[in-house]
Amino acid sequence: MVQLLQRNSCNCILLGFCLLFCLVKFPAVDAKIRHYKWEVKYEYKSPDCFKKLVITINGRTPGPTILAQQGDTVVVELKNSLLTENVAIHWHGIRQIGSPWSDGTEGVTQCPIVPGDTFKYEFVVDRPGTYLYHAHYGMQREAGLYGSIRVALPEGKSEPFFYDYDRSIILNDWYHRSTYEQAVGLSSTPFVWVGEPQSLLIQGKGRFDCATPSLEPGVCNATSPECSPYAVTVVPGKTYRLRISSLTALSALSFQIEGHNMTVVEADGHYVEPFVVKNLFIYSGETYSVIIKANQDPSRNYWMTTNVVSRNATASAPPGLAFLNYYPNHPRRSPPTVPPAGPAWNDVKARLNQSLAIKAHRDFIHTPPQLPDRVMVFLNTQNQIDGKRRWSVNNVSYNLPHTPYLIALKQNLTDAFDQTPPPEGYDFVNYDIYKVQNNTNATSSDGIYRLQFNTTVDIILQNANTMTANNSETHPWHLHGHDFWVLGYGEGKFDMLNDPKKYNLVNPIMKNTVPVHTMGWTALRFRADNPGVWAFHCHIESHFYMGMGVVFAEGIDKVGNLPSSIMGCGETKGVAHRP
Amino acid sequence: MVQLLQRNSCNCILLGFCLLFCLVKFPAVDAKIRHYKWEVKYEYKSPDCFKKLVITINGRTPGPTILAQQGDTVVVELKNSLLTENVAIHWHGIRQIGSPWSDGTEGVTQCPIVPGDTFKYEFVVDRPGTYLYHAHYGMQREAGLYGSIRVALPEGKSEPFFYDYDRSIILNDWYHRSTYEQAVGLSSTPFVWVGEPQSLLIQGKGRFDCATPSLEPGVCNATSPECSPYAVTVVPGKTYRLRISSLTALSALSFQIEGHNMTVVEADGHYVEPFVVKNLFIYSGETYSVIIKANQDPSRNYWMTTNVVSRNATASAPPGLAFLNYYPNHPRRSPPTVPPAGPAWNDVKARLNQSLAIKAHRDFIHTPPQLPDRVMVFLNTQNQIDGKRRWSVNNVSYNLPHTPYLIALKQNLTDAFDQTPPPEGYDFVNYDIYKVQNNTNATSSDGIYRLQFNTTVDIILQNANTMTANNSETHPWHLHGHDFWVLGYGEGKFDMLNDPKKYNLVNPIMKNTVPVHTMGWTALRFRADNPGVWAFHCHIESHFYMGMGVVFAEGIDKVGNLPSSIMGCGETKGVAHRP
Repeated sequence: MVQLLQRNSCNCILLGFCLLFCLVKFPAVDAKIRHYKWEVKYEYKSPDCFKKLVITINGRTPGPTILAQQGDTVVVELKNSLLTENVAIHWHGIRQIGSPWSDGTEGVTQCPIVPGDTFKYEFVVDRPGTYLYHAHYGMQREAGLYGSIRVALPEGKSEPFFYDYDRSIILNDWYHRSTYEQAVGLSSTPFVWVGEPQSLLIQGKGRFDCATPSLEPGVCNATSPECSPYAVTVVPGKTYRLRISSLTALSALSFQIEGHNMTVVEADGHYVEPFVVKNLFIYSGETYSVIIKANQDPSRNYWMTTNVVSRNATASAPPGLAFLNYYPNHPRRSPPTVPPAGPAWNDVKARLNQSLAIKAHRDFIHTPPQLPDRVMVFLNTQNQIDGKRRWSVNNVSYNLPHTPYLIALKQNLTDAFDQTPPPEGYDFVNYDIYKVQNNTNATSSDGIYRLQFNTTVDIILQNANTMTANNSETHPWHLHGHDFWVLGYGEGKFDMLNDPKKYNLVNPIMKNTVPVHTMGWTALRFRADNPGVWAFHCHIESHFYMGMGVVFAEGIDKVGNLPSSIMGCGETKGVAHRP
Repeated sequence: MVQLLQRNSCNCILLGFCLLFCLVKFPAVDAKIRHYKWEVKYEYKSPDCFKKLVITINGRTPGPTILAQQGDTVVVELKNSLLTENVAIHWHGIRQIGSPWSDGTEGVTQCPIVPGDTFKYEFVVDRPGTYLYHAHYGMQREAGLYGSIRVALPEGKSEPFFYDYDRSIILNDWYHRSTYEQAVGLSSTPFVWVGEPQSLLIQGKGRFDCATPSLEPGVCNATSPECSPYAVTVVPGKTYRLRISSLTALSALSFQIEGHNMTVVEADGHYVEPFVVKNLFIYSGETYSVIIKANQDPSRNYWMTTNVVSRNATASAPPGLAFLNYYPNHPRRSPPTVPPAGPAWNDVKARLNQSLAIKAHRDFIHTPPQLPDRVMVFLNTQNQIDGKRRWSVNNVSYNLPHTPYLIALKQNLTDAFDQTPPPEGYDFVNYDIYKVQNNTNATSSDGIYRLQFNTTVDIILQNANTMTANNSETHPWHLHGHDFWVLGYGEGKFDMLNDPKKYNLVNPIMKNTVPVHTMGWTALRFRADNPGVWAFHCHIESHFYMGMGVVFAEGIDKVGNLPSSIMGCGETKGVAHRP
C-alpha cells in the first residue's frame, strides 16, 4: 500500500523525495562505509521566491541527507567549486572520536578548503539519531550550505517509540543580503546589524512577498516552483516520526502543526522521556524527533507553521508555512483554514518550561558524574571593543586564529595563538546582570581553555542585559566533540551556593546544543574525554562572528597523526608533508 | 607658487592627493627598497553613487599608488582580511625577472592567499614608466582591487619630453552585481552575460543615475562625496604628463579632454615617437602617457570624458565625466559647456589608425630580432562547450589548473595539468573568419606551450566573427613576464605569405598589452628569455574567465628555489617546506 502510494505520488513534486527514498535507503542497509561525493558551488536559487546566490551541494540546498547506520564510517569527498572562496563543513552532533581533524571547524580543526581542492571528511557515526551538517567558515552557513544526517539503529535494535515512517524537516531563517554584506556590516563602524530575516524556510522553502516595493524586476517570482510550500505527505492512520531541526542564523523558533499534537521523543540524538507539546520551541543547532499520528479528518491538508520567538520579528519575518498533506489530497492544496498563530514571541516562561521538561528517557539514562573537577562560569555580554559592537564571555570577545589550534597544539606552534587562557568566571558579587553595563574594558583574544583529560567540567552560562535597556537575548550554545548533561536552567543570576543543589543529577538529558534563556542561566556538565580541540559557541551565526565563543583543548598527546590535508594556512603552510 | 597652491587646495577634496604627494613622493627619492603594508578587505563604497561591496586596499579603491625609481625593489606585504575569500595580485607590466613567483597569477605562479595570511610580493622595477597592479584571481579585479605603479628614472636621467608635473588617471568600467553573481551567470546554462557596465569610472569616481527605477531605498546617493567628479587641478601655463591607464572589465574606451590636444609619449612603459590625438583610444591593460598644456581660457574648468567604443553601450553606460580644473577655479565647478561626445563606437578605422601610429621613440628603438624561431597563430573564437558559451584559441578553451604551473613544472608534478600542448595554428585555408561558425568541436584544457629558452617567438592573433552574425569583438591581449614588439596590425585574415613582409622591423613599439581589432589581426614578437611561467590572455575579465588565454613556460631549469609561501593548494599542499 505504501509502496503503491509512493509510486503513484512519484510525480515531479515528489521526485526528489522518491529518488532519495528509492536510491539511497534500500542499498544502504548493510554497507559499513557510506561514501559521498559532493561538489560545492554558487548557484542562483529562489528558496523564498526571491532569486539570489546560494551555496549548493550537488545542486541542492538543503544538501543531500546523509543516511547511515550506527557504527558506519561516513566518507564525504568535498570538492570546492566556489570561484574564489574557501569552505569547511562541520558535522554537527557527531563527536569525531578518533578523528578530531574531521570536525570541519575552520581555524580550530582545519585550514579552509581552497577552490579546486577536494577534501576528504571521514568519521564514524557512533550513535543513532538526528544530526546536521553545515558550513563552519565565516558566515557561510547562511548561504544555504547545510543538511541532515540521519543515523539508524543497527539491525534488530529498536527505538523506545513506534512509528511507521520518518521524515526530516530543517527549519531556517533566510536573508537576501549575501553573507559578505552581512559580515561587513557587523565589522563596520558604525555597526550595521543584520536585522531580522526576510523569511523563514521549512526544509528549504519559504515565501517572501514579491509585492514588496523597490524590488529589482525579475528578482522575485511568486509562482516559482522552488518556493512552493514544502509538503509532508502522510497516509491517514499512520504514525510519523518528524525529525525537526533548526539551523537559523538568528531566530529562535516555534513549530506547530495545525490540529496535531507532537510527542517529543528525541533531542540531539538522545531519547527523551516522552512529553506532548502543541508548540515545539527549537533553537539554532538543536534537533528533535516528534511523533505525530495522522488521525485527523483526512479530506483536507493541515498547516505546519514556524514563527520567530524571543525576538519581536513579527513585522519583518512572516511565519514559515508548509503543508501536512493527507494522502490522497493534492500536496499543493491549501488547507481551508487560517494558519495557526504561534505563541507570543515574548512568552519566556513557556520556553523555559519546555527546556525543563526535557529529561532522559527512563530506559536510556546516562547518569552524570556527581561532582565536577572544574567549574567555569561564562557571563554572556554585549561589549564595545575598538568602536565595534561585539559579544563576549567574561569580558573577552573571541577571535578565530588563522593557524588551526589542532595543528598548533600538536606541533607546538606557541606563537600561533594567545597562550593566556581567558578568565573562568566574572565578578559574581558586583556585576548586575539586569543593568545596562558599558562593558568598556572588554578585550578580544584567541586564547583557549586547556582541560585535563578525563576530567569532569561544569559550565554555567550566565545571561545578562544587552547594551539596550530591558533587553536580553536567547543564546543557543553548541559544544563540538561532546554531548553534555543539562543540569539545570534558572532565571536571574546563578547562585553558586544554592543553585547547584537543585541540579538534576538523576535523569538529565544529554545534548550538544542548549539555550540560555533571556536573563537566565543554564548549567551543563561534560567529560573532557575526547582528544582534540573543540569549539563551544553561540550558534547564532552573527553572534559567533561577533566573538561569542570559546575553545577547549584536551588530550592533545592522544591525538593521532594529523592528515596533511588540514594544513596549508597560517603557520601550517610550511609544515605540511606529503601523505 | 605650486607649493602654495598645493597647501591652499589641501582641503577635504584634495586631502588624499596631498597626503600622497607630501608623504610618499619626497622621502622616496633615494631609497632602494619600497616597502608597503597593505590590508585587503571588503567595504561598502559608492564609487558611482551606488553603494556596494568593493575590495579595498588600506581602505581605498583604487588602492595606493606605488612610487619607485628604476632599479628599486618593491616589497608589498599583503594581508588578506577578506572573510572567506582568497586573493592574488598581479603587477601588470613588471616583468618579474628573477622573481617569477611574484607575478601574482593564481594557478600560474602561486596558490591564492587565504584569509588571515600575509603574503610578501618582492620584485625589482627595472624600467621607468607607467604600470598597474590588480587582482588576478577569479573576477576579483572588478571588485575594485587595482591601482597604479609609477617608476621614475634614476637621478640625473630625463625623459625625451618635458612636463612640469604628472598625474595618474585609471579608467574603469563598473558593475553593480558582485563578481560572484557575474561569474555564476557566465558559468550557467542558460548562459547569463554580464552585460554592459552601469557606469564608467575616472580614477575611481563615476556617476550612476540615482533616479533609475526599482532601486532599493538608500542604495544610491547622488550627493555622496565618494562620487563627486574626479578633478585634475592644473596651473595655467604649466605642462602636465597624464598617465592614463585602463583596467576595464569589458569596455574599450576613448578618453578626451575638452579643448586640449594630447601628445602621446609613452605606451606600456616605452617611449613613443610623439603624436597628437584628440581622442585617446585605450584598451583594458594598456597604459599611456600624454602631455597636455594648460593653455586654454583659465577662467573656467574643462571636461575630461571617457566613453565606450567597439561595443554599442551608449544606451546603458553613460560617459564617465571628470574635470580638468584650472586653478584657482573651484575643483567642483562644472564647465559651462556640454561634455564633448567621444567618437562613434563603431569607427574601427580610427582605432586601427591609432594602433598603427604608435611607434618606438626614435632615440629609444629596441630593434627586434629580424626572424622568429617559432610562429604561432591564435585564432580567437566564441564556442559552445558542454552547453556553455566559451572563448577559445585554436578551438581550445583555457581552464586554470589548481596546482600552479610554476610549482608543477619545477617539481615535475606531471599529473597537475594536461601535458598535451594546445595547437599552434588553425585551418588557415578553410576557416572563414567572417562566417558565423558553430565551433562545436572545441575542447577545454589547461595544457600549455613550452618555449625553448632564448628563442624568438611570433604570435599572430587572428580575430573572427563571434557566434552572432556580423559581429566581431575587440580583444586586448596581455602578456605576463615580457614586453613584445608590435610588428603589425591588419584587417581580415592574416596572410601567412605576404603579411609578414609588411612587418615593422625598424621601429616597432614594445608593449605588454595590444588590441586585436574587430575582424582583424595583430602580430607580435618576443624573446623567451625570462625563466618562469607566463599567462597570455585577453584582458577582458569575463573573456579570460570564459577561456580566452594561453600559458607559456620557458627556462624552468633556470628558475631559482620557489618560496614555500606560494604553495598550499592542489598538489602543492603536501610538498611545502618550512622556509
